[in-house]
Amino acid sequence: AGSMATVEELKLRVRELENELIKCKQRQCAAEDAHNRPRIDKMSAEVVDSNPYSRLMALKRMGIVDDYEKIRTFAVAVVGVGGVGSVTAEMLTRCGIGKLLLFDYDKVELANMNRLFFQPHQAGLSKVEAAEHTLRNINPDVAFETHNYNITTLDNFTHFMDRISHSGLEEGKPVDLVLSCVDNFEARMAINTACNELGQIWMESGVSENAVSGHIQLIIPGETACFACAPPLVVAANIDEKTLKREGVCAASLPTTMGVVAGLLVQNVLKYLLKFGTVSYYLGYNAMQDFFPTMAMKANPQCSDRHCRRQQEEFKKKEVERPKVEAVQPEEEEIIHEDNEWGIELVSEVSDAELQAASGAVPDLPEGITVAYTVPAGEKVSGDTVEETEVSLEDLMAQMRKL
Amino acid sequence: AGSMATVEELKLRVRELENELIKCKQRQCAAEDAHNRPRIDKMSAEVVDSNPYSRLMALKRMGIVDDYEKIRTFAVAVVGVGGVGSVTAEMLTRCGIGKLLLFDYDKVELANMNRLFFQPHQAGLSKVEAAEHTLRNINPDVAFETHNYNITTLDNFTHFMDRISHSGLEEGKPVDLVLSCVDNFEARMAINTACNELGQIWMESGVSENAVSGHIQLIIPGETACFACAPPLVVAANIDEKTLKREGVCAASLPTTMGVVAGLLVQNVLKYLLKFGTVSYYLGYNAMQDFFPTMAMKANPQCSDRHCRRQQEEFKKKEVERPKVEAVQPEEEEIIHEDNEWGIELVSEVSDAELQAASGAVPDLPEGITVAYTVPAGEKVSGDTVEETEVSLEDLMAQMRKL
Repeated sequence: AGSMATVEELKLRVRELENELIKCKQRQCAAEDAHNRPRIDKMSAEVVDSNPYSRLMALKRMGIVDDYEKIRTFAVAVVGVGGVGSVTAEMLTRCGIGKLLLFDYDKVELANMNRLFFQPHQAGLSKVEAAEHTLRNINPDVAFETHNYNITTLDNFTHFMDRISHSGLEEGKPVDLVLSCVDNFEARMAINTACNELGQIWMESGVSENAVSGHIQLIIPGETACFACAPPLVVAANIDEKTLKREGVCAASLPTTMGVVAGLLVQNVLKYLLKFGTVSYYLGYNAMQDFFPTMAMKANPQCSDRHCRRQQEEFKKKEVERPKVEAVQPEEEEIIHEDNEWGIELVSEVSDAELQAASGAVPDLPEGITVAYTVPAGEKVSGDTVEETEVSLEDLMAQMRKL
Repeated sequence: AGSMATVEELKLRVRELENELIKCKQRQCAAEDAHNRPRIDKMSAEVVDSNPYSRLMALKRMGIVDDYEKIRTFAVAVVGVGGVGSVTAEMLTRCGIGKLLLFDYDKVELANMNRLFFQPHQAGLSKVEAAEHTLRNINPDVAFETHNYNITTLDNFTHFMDRISHSGLEEGKPVDLVLSCVDNFEARMAINTACNELGQIWMESGVSENAVSGHIQLIIPGETACFACAPPLVVAANIDEKTLKREGVCAASLPTTMGVVAGLLVQNVLKYLLKFGTVSYYLGYNAMQDFFPTMAMKANPQCSDRHCRRQQEEFKKKEVERPKVEAVQPEEEEIIHEDNEWGIELVSEVSDAELQAASGAVPDLPEGITVAYTVPAGEKVSGDTVEETEVSLEDLMAQMRKL
C-alpha cells in the first residue's frame, strides 16, 4: 500500500510539473508573440486606433503627398547602423518602406547607449542582427536584408556593389537610394566609388567628432559634386582644430544631434521618393547656434574618379537631347532642373550662376561651411579646380587614414 | 517488481520535469534581467566599450561642456509622452538626466507606430507606464516619476502644480525645467498658467497637423512672451487652411518631423542646463523647404494672465537693482541679457530694438512664421497690444475649443 501511495503521489507530482511547465512555456511564447503584429496587405487610411498607417495616409488628405502607398515600392540601402543609421532605419521602417538593406560590421556596446535605438540587453549582438530583430517587431510589413561585413574590403565591396545594383524590391533591379550613415572617410569613399560606377543616386550624412554639428547631402552622379570632386563639406563648429585632432581621443556623441541628422536625412528621403517639398542638396546643422546652412555644388569636370567623369558626360548628353521647354518660372523661387530625369523639382536658394561658380575642388562656401579636410601638401591647386594628378584614390585614402 | 519499476520511472520523470521547469524559468529570468544593466554611481570618462557615458563625458575633452556630470543634478518634467515627448524623454534618459517626471493620460495604440519609441507589443498600456518600463531598461541611473492623468482637470492641475514645484531631484525643490510636448491648446494653456504662477522656466514644442512643420520655444515668465501675451506662433507650411480645419480629419504625423523637433528641443535643454552654445528663444522647422526661422518676443505688459504681469514687475525690479556693468561686446554678435538670473548668455539674431518692437499681441513676425490662431472676432485690437478685456482665460479657451 505504501508503494502504491508513492506511485499515486508521484503521478500527481508529474501532472503538477507538466502543467507548470506548459504554463511556463506559454508565458515565454506569449512574451515573444506579443512583439509581433499581423502583416497588413494594403495600407489603409481608416482612422482607427489599430491602424499603424492612418497618420501617414493622412498626408494625402492634408495635401502633402499625392500617393503615400508608393512608399511600399521602394528599396533603400542604409550603410552604417550606428547613431544616425539605426534611427534612419527605424524611421523608414515606421514609415512603411518596401525594403531595407542594412550594412554594418560592428557589435552593439554599452558605449552606444548615449544614442537612440539600441538597448543594453543587445550588447554583444551584431548591429545588423539586433536592428533587424527590433525593426521586424516594429513593422513586419518591411522586407529586410542584412549584411554583417565591412564594405571596404575587396570581396565585400564587390558583394556590396552587387547587392545595391540587384537587390531592389524586385530582385535583379537596383535599390532606389543608398544612404551613407558611416563614421569614417574610407567607407564614405567606398560608397562614392560604387555609386559613381553604378550611376546610383545616394545621400550622405555626417556628425562632427565634437557632437555639435552635422549635415546631409544629396549626390547625383554626373550632376552634383561627388566625394572625389571636392573634399566633403562640414558645418564649422568653431572648435579648436587641435582639440579635435588629438591622438586617440574618443569622439563625443549626442542623441540629439544624431536624431536631428537622421530626421533631416529621412525627411529628405521621403521628399525625394514621394515627390513633395524641396529636396535639399546640402543641409548643415550647427547645434551651438541653431544655424542650418544650405548650398549646392556641381560636379567637377576634373574629378579624379573616371566613373564620375563618365557620368558627367552622360548627363551633358541627356541635357542636350532633352526637348527645350519654355519653363514658367514662379515669381519668388527659381526652380532649377525643372524636368530632370528623376522627376522632382529642385528649388534652390543658389542661382545657376552661383551653382556654376561653386564647381571645382574648393568652391566659394557659404558662411559656416568648411571642408572636412584640406588637400594634402604637395597637391597643386590651380584656380578653383584640382589639377589631375597621378595620385590614385587609394593613395589619397591612405594619406587620409594617417591624419 | 512492476510497480517498483513504475516508481523508478515516475521518479525519473519527476526529475526530468523539475530540471526542464528550472531551465524554463531561468530562461524567463535571463530574458528579463538581460534588459537591465547595473546602476553606475559615478559617471566615468573612461573609453571602454562597457561605459555608457564615455561619449557624453567626451564633450568635456572636446571643449563643448565644462561639467557634463552636472546633468545628474537636474530634474525635468515632460508633459505629453507622444511623438515628441517620448523621444524627448528617451534622449534625456540616454544623456543621464537626474530625474524625469512624465505626465500623460493616453494609451499606446497601433496608430502611434508611425512615430519613434513605442512598440506594437505595448499597445493598450498607458503611455507613461510603457515609457517608464522602456526608459528604466535603457538607463537605470535615472529617477522616474510618472502621472497617468490629464493635467487640465481642476484636481489634476493642482496636483501637477504641486509636483513641478516640489518634485525636483531633492524632494521639496522645484524641477529645473518643464517641457510641453502636448498636442492641444488647452494643455498648453494649463502649463502656461502653472509656470506663470510659479515663475517656472519652460520650453514649448509643437508639430503642425499636416506633419511638415514644427517649432520649439523658450518661455521665461516675466521676460519673454507667454502663451497669454500673444497667440502661439507656428511655422507656416503654405498649406490651404481649409484642408487643415476640416471637421473630424485625422491629423497626419511623421517620425522625421517629430524626431527633429524632439532633437532640437532636447539640444536646447542641454544647452540651457549645461551652459554651452546659444539657447534659442524660438526655432521653427519648415520641412517642405528646410527652412529654420528664429526669433524672440518680449512679454506683453497688457497680458491677460495676472501672474505673467506680476512676473514682469518682478523682472523689471531685478533689472533695475542689478549692478550695471560695462559689458564687453564681441564684434560679430550682440549678447543680450549678459548676466541674467539663470546664468546663461543668450545670443540672438534680433537686436534689442527688434525685440522691443516684437512686444505685444501680434508682433512683426519674420517671414514664414505665423500665429497659430487669430484673436476671436469681437476682441478689439489697438496698436500692437490687445486691450485688456473682461474675457477670462477660460472663456478664451472655450472659444478656442470650438474652432
